[in-house]
Amino acid sequence: MKKSVKVAIVGAGVSGLKAAETLISSGKIGKDELVVLEAQDHIGGRIQDSHLNQSKLGIPYALGALWYHDSLVNSVLHELLDAGLLNDDDVYYDDKDGPAYTSDGLLDVSGIKLNRVMEEVGQFFGLYFKKNHSDASCDQVVQEYVNKHSHFLTPEQKKYIRRTMRYFELWYGVPAEKANGKMAMESHTGRNLLNKKGYTFLIELLKEKIPESCILFNEGVRFVNQLENSKKKVEVETKSGLKVEADYLIVTVPLSILKLKEDDDYGIKWTPSLPSQTSDYINTVDFAALGKVIFEFNNVWWNENEDHFLIFPDQIDSSDWFRSDGTPRPFSFPALAVNYSRLYNKGGSLVILTPAPLTEYLESHPDQSWTYFKPMLEKIATKPVQDPISTITSQWTTNPYIRGSYSVLLTKIDAKHSSSGEPEGVELGNAVIRFAGEHTIAEGAGCVHGAYDSGKREANWVLNALKGN
Amino acid sequence: MKKSVKVAIVGAGVSGLKAAETLISSGKIGKDELVVLEAQDHIGGRIQDSHLNQSKLGIPYALGALWYHDSLVNSVLHELLDAGLLNDDDVYYDDKDGPAYTSDGLLDVSGIKLNRVMEEVGQFFGLYFKKNHSDASCDQVVQEYVNKHSHFLTPEQKKYIRRTMRYFELWYGVPAEKANGKMAMESHTGRNLLNKKGYTFLIELLKEKIPESCILFNEGVRFVNQLENSKKKVEVETKSGLKVEADYLIVTVPLSILKLKEDDDYGIKWTPSLPSQTSDYINTVDFAALGKVIFEFNNVWWNENEDHFLIFPDQIDSSDWFRSDGTPRPFSFPALAVNYSRLYNKGGSLVILTPAPLTEYLESHPDQSWTYFKPMLEKIATKPVQDPISTITSQWTTNPYIRGSYSVLLTKIDAKHSSSGEPEGVELGNAVIRFAGEHTIAEGAGCVHGAYDSGKREANWVLNALKGN
Repeated sequence: MKKSVKVAIVGAGVSGLKAAETLISSGKIGKDELVVLEAQDHIGGRIQDSHLNQSKLGIPYALGALWYHDSLVNSVLHELLDAGLLNDDDVYYDDKDGPAYTSDGLLDVSGIKLNRVMEEVGQFFGLYFKKNHSDASCDQVVQEYVNKHSHFLTPEQKKYIRRTMRYFELWYGVPAEKANGKMAMESHTGRNLLNKKGYTFLIELLKEKIPESCILFNEGVRFVNQLENSKKKVEVETKSGLKVEADYLIVTVPLSILKLKEDDDYGIKWTPSLPSQTSDYINTVDFAALGKVIFEFNNVWWNENEDHFLIFPDQIDSSDWFRSDGTPRPFSFPALAVNYSRLYNKGGSLVILTPAPLTEYLESHPDQSWTYFKPMLEKIATKPVQDPISTITSQWTTNPYIRGSYSVLLTKIDAKHSSSGEPEGVELGNAVIRFAGEHTIAEGAGCVHGAYDSGKREANWVLNALKGN
Repeated sequence: MKKSVKVAIVGAGVSGLKAAETLISSGKIGKDELVVLEAQDHIGGRIQDSHLNQSKLGIPYALGALWYHDSLVNSVLHELLDAGLLNDDDVYYDDKDGPAYTSDGLLDVSGIKLNRVMEEVGQFFGLYFKKNHSDASCDQVVQEYVNKHSHFLTPEQKKYIRRTMRYFELWYGVPAEKANGKMAMESHTGRNLLNKKGYTFLIELLKEKIPESCILFNEGVRFVNQLENSKKKVEVETKSGLKVEADYLIVTVPLSILKLKEDDDYGIKWTPSLPSQTSDYINTVDFAALGKVIFEFNNVWWNENEDHFLIFPDQIDSSDWFRSDGTPRPFSFPALAVNYSRLYNKGGSLVILTPAPLTEYLESHPDQSWTYFKPMLEKIATKPVQDPISTITSQWTTNPYIRGSYSVLLTKIDAKHSSSGEPEGVELGNAVIRFAGEHTIAEGAGCVHGAYDSGKREANWVLNALKGN
């Protein structure tokens, strides 16, 4: 089969859908002039709710993005608010100071002033990279702080600071000993607002504005070819053999897909090859694996007034995080347990964030989730611990179309890439190919609103280019 | 009397003393080639401990600077540490999360997530001034935040946020409705470390390295004259009639003295007048009045495990802060009460920071201090409130040689002055006059280490200039 359109978009996640919606809403692109090729059988990409039959409590859990980050400047949040589409019940600031636990039990973070030391370590990152131009991981910078300022730290602070600073892993989705310390210099603009209504609502809003016929499912792109003796400038070919030729192409596949070898079944073969500026960028930035494990219980057996619980790891060498049989040792990784009984008045459930490489393990061995978490969650118990009535794990790393969570900088990369993740448009011969997605934007990188803004940006780029012609 | 030297320094505060010490330690300036003119009968300027006979508990209180701010980069702190001159007992991090009170009693800042909102307001300042290039006070920016984000604030957060953000006044020493909001964008590099040993120790260290004969007391400078038909380039004349001619002059008087009219008894008359760049700077920056009231009690009647207590004001219009008889209403101003029973195991004492214009009132009416503070301190009581056995108030605003605390930006000023407070060296005809002090430096402005660094800077400037000749 063959199609010919003005604009082809690869991927129907939030960036692809926002690009499509922007093009259609402009009135400059008709429904026969646009196609969105989606490799999976559903839209939304890394925005996905659990199926209702997965929850015994009837709660839809966000398996991917959950919060409006940087809420003072979050474009999605402010557009929804301005449109009157959010009620007070749709959002919740789940950022009350929460109790923190280690294998020793409750850690009095405030009493031993560990919160102040953690803030100071945050300030130390900027100081460190002002003086040191070489790369360092989050953990290396924390160790350097401890070395330099040990005379000011109490024995307790020294005991815990390196372990507590691993909370970074719950942001970056990778171990602190690999995460690039430069990421810790990023500042936030506004609180994190829990999106109780779910981001699938946003996906549905965008979908409603795009003609149904524009979105083609189960069409994973395998080839992107420059066209020379043709009216159209670029042709994409999918696994199923569908060929779509277009004037403009917007590629919104996850960074993990761009990083695949060309001969990988899920990779894309570019003819001619991508220019070095683009392939360098793709090689430089990595892909994290933040995951989620959700436990449902008949009753709440923890303090239901807390928004969340933090579990800090023991000081375990990374070579010992997994036992020789491959199972993870408890207290090997930090965990954030969001208390959903603050949000839903049904039984009790905890949504737990996990970093790589724990995510890969649990997503491949979901039946091991409770075995791993039980010794840690026992610490938060105020009543007898119950076994879960259901367990839901995200499946991002096992999904060949996703392969993880979002882009991240590891320690190998160079400073010039740390502040901006925006590769400019790519020209393949006479073909014009653009990229969108959370990995292509500096403000909101890794976030829904960043992906959304990047889709809008690329649609507007195309509209501008059309105007020029 | 007449003296002739290579370098004259006006003021024997920390910047003047550091400049003198640097010159002497260089070996390039002999003891007969340097003079330091001090208007008062003692050295130290705004570094001063209470007299021992003022304290019934035998505690020396720092009436001026108390903390090592920005402790990760504080030059004074790190030099003292490197020299092995600080013991563990000499410093104390007094930054444990402390309880906060209003006229309603204990305010559960963490429980109502007001701490999160306060952090977010801190982030909003940067956002505000990115969009608005005109001036705004701290309080105006907070009000703008509330207006823009009221749909996200709980009724309690709305009730308290403007009042709690007045804690800025305890940093800036001026009311939040006058303090320039741009100051709130400054970030810190390190925790605040309480200097229990006192800064007079630093003053004594510097003094020991300066020949005694170099420092002349009770010599307030009234005239600075350019010399034309003379070997020396500049002449200063003091109130007592002493004339000192010098090749170089370093002026370290407080900004408050520079701001006086030339015909003021405590002002300086410049011939020729200061160049407009310098006088503009002097007019642009203002002088704050952070003060201290110290109460001593026979016993501790508050929670002795707290580092400090915060009192937040009521929402009182500034026109009502003082009653018609001139006395201040309780809960008109924020207050920080540092719990000295954490530092000294003798009776109990509280050191309370006060902003302008309360400072002016209490320093002029020290006998009214307990009347003002009692209704507020009653809130922190865990045992029956006792009357103080002694009260010590700072006297900065009533001291005609000081007239307040340190430099501050008020709302009238222009953005270009907010990030840097370093006026370059001033040339009066063929005379070379340099300025040092907390008001002349960007890093550490308003702080002891800033003043210290500025003195070192100007001494090195002079040493460099001498090398050139």
